[in-house]
Amino acid sequence: MAERAEGGRLDEFEIISRYFAPLATDKASLGLKDDAAVLVVPDRQELVISCDTLVEGVHFLADDPADTVGHKVLAVTLSDLAAKGARPYAYLLALSLPPETTAAWLEAFASGLGELQREAGIALIGGDTTATPGPLSITVTGLGQVLHSHVVLRYGAKPGDRLYVTGTIGDACLGLRLLRDPSLAQTWGLSQADTAFLIERYREPVARTSCALLVRNFGQAAIDVSDGLVGDIEKLCAVSHTGARIEVSAVPLSAAAKKAVASDSALLNELITAGDDYEIVVAVAATSAGDFEAEVAKTGSSVTLIGEITEEKAGVLAVNGAGEPIQLAKSGFRHNWG
Amino acid sequence: MAERAEGGRLDEFEIISRYFAPLATDKASLGLKDDAAVLVVPDRQELVISCDTLVEGVHFLADDPADTVGHKVLAVTLSDLAAKGARPYAYLLALSLPPETTAAWLEAFASGLGELQREAGIALIGGDTTATPGPLSITVTGLGQVLHSHVVLRYGAKPGDRLYVTGTIGDACLGLRLLRDPSLAQTWGLSQADTAFLIERYREPVARTSCALLVRNFGQAAIDVSDGLVGDIEKLCAVSHTGARIEVSAVPLSAAAKKAVASDSALLNELITAGDDYEIVVAVAATSAGDFEAEVAKTGSSVTLIGEITEEKAGVLAVNGAGEPIQLAKSGFRHNWG
Repeated sequence: MAERAEGGRLDEFEIISRYFAPLATDKASLGLKDDAAVLVVPDRQELVISCDTLVEGVHFLADDPADTVGHKVLAVTLSDLAAKGARPYAYLLALSLPPETTAAWLEAFASGLGELQREAGIALIGGDTTATPGPLSITVTGLGQVLHSHVVLRYGAKPGDRLYVTGTIGDACLGLRLLRDPSLAQTWGLSQADTAFLIERYREPVARTSCALLVRNFGQAAIDVSDGLVGDIEKLCAVSHTGARIEVSAVPLSAAAKKAVASDSALLNELITAGDDYEIVVAVAATSAGDFEAEVAKTGSSVTLIGEITEEKAGVLAVNGAGEPIQLAKSGFRHNWG
Repeated sequence: MAERAEGGRLDEFEIISRYFAPLATDKASLGLKDDAAVLVVPDRQELVISCDTLVEGVHFLADDPADTVGHKVLAVTLSDLAAKGARPYAYLLALSLPPETTAAWLEAFASGLGELQREAGIALIGGDTTATPGPLSITVTGLGQVLHSHVVLRYGAKPGDRLYVTGTIGDACLGLRLLRDPSLAQTWGLSQADTAFLIERYREPVARTSCALLVRNFGQAAIDVSDGLVGDIEKLCAVSHTGARIEVSAVPLSAAAKKAVASDSALLNELITAGDDYEIVVAVAATSAGDFEAEVAKTGSSVTLIGEITEEKAGVLAVNGAGEPIQLAKSGFRHNWG
């Protein structure tokens, strides 16, 4: 009933059947006609489950295009699964929609989801659609599969392990700052293409699904970088009971981020603690590092050595080119109340 | 660090370790020290997954006691699982907390969750804690297990099946109306105990986990009543391609609800379409009805025959004692936008 979509009211059941049922491509979804999904986990597979909430104004901006919001909520989930070495399998989507939500927004949101889900090989299997007087809020529960006892956790890093990170760090932080204050493009000497690249990195993080197998095969421990590179490495080290040395000059930066840092060197400390990167940090045993790097080269993955795991008592240190610890205002982002 | 809980700021990691880690009693949770749960589904079991969001001011009231909010979010999930005939296994909790959230609120919320999770035999295995400028919002993803191919769906009812419902219908609707307008207690001739009972039914719905096995063993199809008895039976019938006849005079009412209906007979139509009951409707083949009722009696369950499944062309009808269709303003609740 397109006429209702264009001008009239949309109810939750129409929303599900029109925009989300086409994404329910796995039979576990029961076509989204039930209020639960039913799935069989293959023998010898473990199920990895993660859960992330993204709130408008907190995790994305009110004027971010809807398709990028769809991309982002799923990319965040895929990032969690990849950091565990798990193959994406299915996801549930809980949407809290404010009164002003339009059919056009939902259609674009679903198209962003759909594009990434096809790329990643994951399917929508359930969820909930509800009204909220508050900001648009989206919770994605992601399910991945990994061969029994092959899951990679935050726990498991050992002193001497090499620390690697995928992609580049800090782009999303710069993209968000550019969205909030477009004049920074000039301050930082960025071209239009640089600016567009950094904004895209904030709005549409790359899900490192293609690195899941590398993580699974070589990772002693891994974590995805959502709250800041240094802070997330601290979390990995806390549960692994280790320290870490992060060579800040080795942290991979995009060409655009390098320009910004060249114009304001104080930015670097911000980039390694800001978060929203959705890159993956993986600790690889020193004895496997050669094989790992060969596999990285063979698969053409973007992975960079940034430091190593140390003894717990050494703490987690970000060090400069001379090996001296750098003082950071904070190591990562955390929500606070009270 | 109790002093921070009392007066200072709370961060997400403290919240998790203080209030939620004690609820993470299954090893799949990894002690909530990772950002994913890892679980092995036993052979021959299917996994049933449901997802529900509850928003303050929409699904519960801002001044509902925090422990009842904890109870309710989990009861809603358990109700979904029971309607599938599934045994509760684990849940993930995504919390979006407004700035004014206090340690006292979180502690009481967790205690409400904890009490019901112990009763139901379910464990917290993961989730997310994030900040929101908007209303408090909670998404629970529930996981249940059921023997392979024994799951009960909305689909599967056949003409001639008997329709049963657990517990009593309409109490939550009356409880919510009493919270909004306490003077109704006098209008409806309710005692203080009646009023307290109805309010408790709104705030702390009974999760019919104890009926899951009855549903699994005898149900052709089932649904939990969250959006209104008639509307939810319509949903079951829509996917089963059947009609249904609901004998309104047979719908089970609590003593308190009977008093209210006695004082205002127009209320009855509202009670059977209002929702928030979290009771379970189950369709049982006529040939099994005797065995089902014997088992109900043996287990002391509260289950009432309210009608039967009919041919699709007959539609879903609520009928009075004389078998005449009753005109309803609406059959159930649905969120709307636009």
